[in-house]
Amino acid sequence: MQTERVIFVTNDDSYLSKGFRAAVNLASEFGRVVAIAPDRVQSGMSQAITINQPLFMRKVESSERVEIYAFSGTPVDCAKIAFDHLFVGRKVDLVLSGINHGSNAAVNVMYSGTMGAAIEGSFYSVPSIGLSLDDHDADADFEGAVKYGRMVIKSVLEAATELPRPLCLNVNVPRIAADQIEGIRLCRQTRGFWREEFYARQDPHGREYFWLTGAFQNAEPEAEDTDEWALAHRYVAVVPVQVDMTDYRMLGSLQGVIK
Amino acid sequence: MQTERVIFVTNDDSYLSKGFRAAVNLASEFGRVVAIAPDRVQSGMSQAITINQPLFMRKVESSERVEIYAFSGTPVDCAKIAFDHLFVGRKVDLVLSGINHGSNAAVNVMYSGTMGAAIEGSFYSVPSIGLSLDDHDADADFEGAVKYGRMVIKSVLEAATELPRPLCLNVNVPRIAADQIEGIRLCRQTRGFWREEFYARQDPHGREYFWLTGAFQNAEPEAEDTDEWALAHRYVAVVPVQVDMTDYRMLGSLQGVIK
Repeated sequence: MQTERVIFVTNDDSYLSKGFRAAVNLASEFGRVVAIAPDRVQSGMSQAITINQPLFMRKVESSERVEIYAFSGTPVDCAKIAFDHLFVGRKVDLVLSGINHGSNAAVNVMYSGTMGAAIEGSFYSVPSIGLSLDDHDADADFEGAVKYGRMVIKSVLEAATELPRPLCLNVNVPRIAADQIEGIRLCRQTRGFWREEFYARQDPHGREYFWLTGAFQNAEPEAEDTDEWALAHRYVAVVPVQVDMTDYRMLGSLQGVIK
Repeated sequence: MQTERVIFVTNDDSYLSKGFRAAVNLASEFGRVVAIAPDRVQSGMSQAITINQPLFMRKVESSERVEIYAFSGTPVDCAKIAFDHLFVGRKVDLVLSGINHGSNAAVNVMYSGTMGAAIEGSFYSVPSIGLSLDDHDADADFEGAVKYGRMVIKSVLEAATELPRPLCLNVNVPRIAADQIEGIRLCRQTRGFWREEFYARQDPHGREYFWLTGAFQNAEPEAEDTDEWALAHRYVAVVPVQVDMTDYRMLGSLQGVIK
């Protein structure tokens, strides 16, 4: 018996964002959508979880094809309650997190709540895709992200039984018109870090405040196998993501040092 | 000229925690301590950053050897404002994040705010140590963590010029008396994930709430080179951490699938 696919959708820009709606519509082409997304903006929340507070969920939309819940937790909390509460005993075919307003290429994969949720979803042995557009604008044009997101989803669903688990993809789409995109490139994560310039001012009560504002420092701008290179050259970047953070090369350097 | 060392201390349990005080005291054995820690508990905050709000910092302690600031941001925000604001132009010799109330072994490295700050610190080319005790008790006994933390710090400072950067260590200490600990083991991160049981109840107003409560599922309990094995066998586990999350093996599996 062919049962209908179930696609879990989440993000970090909240269920009210334009990118989330684009993801829900895209996912509904492939099956029944069940979405749990943060009830407010949770950008930059990384793999954060809520330990010390109760969390509240409410259904905000329900039709034959689409069911949406707003949740008071982080993006990772959304994935956890989906798989360890809502979906218990049910088969889920795909996780789609996004479409994020802003790139999650390079080390952004670590800070992103959208990628946090995608990574968490992959822990449940379900193929998981984080989809991001390199444009922070609340009214960004998601046409290219939808077009190429559709292609990646199709490929993953077709090959799902052959691919190992956990399977998590970080898909980033350049901020250009859909017909200007050159294609898709499999990439590795670009090396490099953010450097911040803290914007420091006084509030109306004379207290100094700081506001984070930084720029990514690409340590290898010429490396053609990286996600940043792909984006800069009009390609969609696809990086498979895993969570063993062991520095195996450093293990060698530490022999005889740590004893 | 021999200048005094500067040690940056931070954590995720806030500047008021017992483990933070233990870290400040330990670090002060090695140099002048400058600490910026969250002004409230920020456990489970991972690599989260604060993008959409202003942040406030206040000095809460100042002596010749120790300077402590309470900051309204996440642990990673603490590291960022330390290096990109407070320390600009100054040399820092070591980052010590902790001592965490609770283990950050295995995949906990991804959820932990203490490890988030340690990882962030390593991005500034300063040797960085996240130190955690496998005991969540607010009044936990930090004697073993201090004893072995001291040994690891000493080793890292002595070898600092020879070791590559970024250098970040995830150090976890078992919850046993200091003299029961067998020694230190270099390890890799244990494979495995958390599975949650959401505690669901009704609040006094009749609304359903959920509270995260889970258990770590060790996928390789017999693997003697892992951090969980070390902790279970009375060793201090030291795992070097890096942030290239690319799944290189999956890159091979995806050839011809994503196109």
